[in-house]
Amino acid sequence: MSVEVLKSHKTFEGMTQFWQHDSSATGTKMKFSTFIPEGEVLGAVIWLSGLTCTDENFITKAGAQKYLQDQQLMVICPDTSPRGLDLPSEHESYDFGSGAGFYVDATTEGYKDHYKMFTYIADELWSLLQTKFQIPANKISIMGHSMGGHGALVLGLRNPEKFQSISAFSPIANPMQCPWGKKAFAGYLGSDELTWNAYDATVLVREGYRHPKAILVDQGTKDEFYESEQLLPENLQKACAAKDQALEMNFRQDYDHSYYFIASFIENHIRHHAEALRN
Amino acid sequence: MSVEVLKSHKTFEGMTQFWQHDSSATGTKMKFSTFIPEGEVLGAVIWLSGLTCTDENFITKAGAQKYLQDQQLMVICPDTSPRGLDLPSEHESYDFGSGAGFYVDATTEGYKDHYKMFTYIADELWSLLQTKFQIPANKISIMGHSMGGHGALVLGLRNPEKFQSISAFSPIANPMQCPWGKKAFAGYLGSDELTWNAYDATVLVREGYRHPKAILVDQGTKDEFYESEQLLPENLQKACAAKDQALEMNFRQDYDHSYYFIASFIENHIRHHAEALRN
Repeated sequence: MSVEVLKSHKTFEGMTQFWQHDSSATGTKMKFSTFIPEGEVLGAVIWLSGLTCTDENFITKAGAQKYLQDQQLMVICPDTSPRGLDLPSEHESYDFGSGAGFYVDATTEGYKDHYKMFTYIADELWSLLQTKFQIPANKISIMGHSMGGHGALVLGLRNPEKFQSISAFSPIANPMQCPWGKKAFAGYLGSDELTWNAYDATVLVREGYRHPKAILVDQGTKDEFYESEQLLPENLQKACAAKDQALEMNFRQDYDHSYYFIASFIENHIRHHAEALRN
Repeated sequence: MSVEVLKSHKTFEGMTQFWQHDSSATGTKMKFSTFIPEGEVLGAVIWLSGLTCTDENFITKAGAQKYLQDQQLMVICPDTSPRGLDLPSEHESYDFGSGAGFYVDATTEGYKDHYKMFTYIADELWSLLQTKFQIPANKISIMGHSMGGHGALVLGLRNPEKFQSISAFSPIANPMQCPWGKKAFAGYLGSDELTWNAYDATVLVREGYRHPKAILVDQGTKDEFYESEQLLPENLQKACAAKDQALEMNFRQDYDHSYYFIASFIENHIRHHAEALRN
């Protein structure tokens, strides 16, 4: 598998880079960005972005490089969907298709051949961290924002042996109960809602999925999508309480859904993962 | 003069905001962004962006808000040219016209009625900091990047009483001697090169313009525009040495022209201005 570097920028002594490779999971070229600190590398955190994002948003806007360098952590930020296809309805709306892969393995016609984002992250990118970037298999964690917060929760809960710690900003915490999730799951998974359960963090916790480390979640109280009930973090909170899943849920007064919010609290998320990976 | 807030995002306890107002200098609406820290505000720094930028680049990509909050400094980031016009050749290239105002007061036909960016920054925005944001007149500094580094040097050298300190990333330090500067000055100021002197930092220093504080400049050694001789920082260095203008010029090994470079060293620039404004 050839992995090609497209751009490199020295940043805080380390290196911010943009990459492209041929993905076996999606059958397309896929892009991702990385920051690799100067010196020893403790481990890697996968960052999953939200709706409409690409591999560029986090690495450009979150101001994470300084803290990653401080903690000797690598970050890898995949794109949010396959690109360069022309599937039915793929480019018609911001919340389905391109830019909106929802980190599921699609089963519907057309999408099932390419929209394998769950496998892409959990297997292909996870393996690439080891083969291409020499990260040990037990030194990988996962985090994300909004749709990517959903992805981080679901991937981490279903693969606790692969991801040492989980954190999320403003995650879509109970997608089966919100408009974004219902639309995406119907489109990618079809009408049998039983198949949706595997991709809903709140349902997974209710069903007994557990992660050994406390999950860290930050949620702004002036987040328009929190207010419009797309995120439903309280449902996750209730499920974790009922099932003794350790959860640190911080409601941040007056913060919104933007990268300004992420930038304000990313240092704490990076410390959360560094502590888990140092053990 | 009505100043309208378009968007607000809580960031590091302070507030990132986007604004629009009717400019008397340009005769157009102008946009700018700000970060205002929580708590007491020591002063303000004007940030001038480079070619193709808007009021959004710095506030989104530089990761400055944390350090501004730490130092109790406000930043204000104007757009790089008037917008919404249709002057001859205004939208044909990235290095002249819209997005490329070069912080001069134009004298050529068409442009002279609107491209008054020197006056816009030195008078209108400088006054707005006092009237709208309650910043004392002696608590304002200036910095910028590339074309905006040029602007910060020229505005600061010509108005040392208005700007308490100057810093620049990768400035176009001697525009009369580089392709970008020659094209822009010919277009905005006409063919009489004597009129260009007032907008060339190296020439100003040679002519005896001085700032009482040391000027801080950072320049990456792998900057493609440094390599192609658009920036010419050594010419500024020589002029400052010859005229006893204090200058801290840092050549940063392997850094390029991007915002990743700016993010890596912005903390030091913010400290530089905070020290000057604290006295």
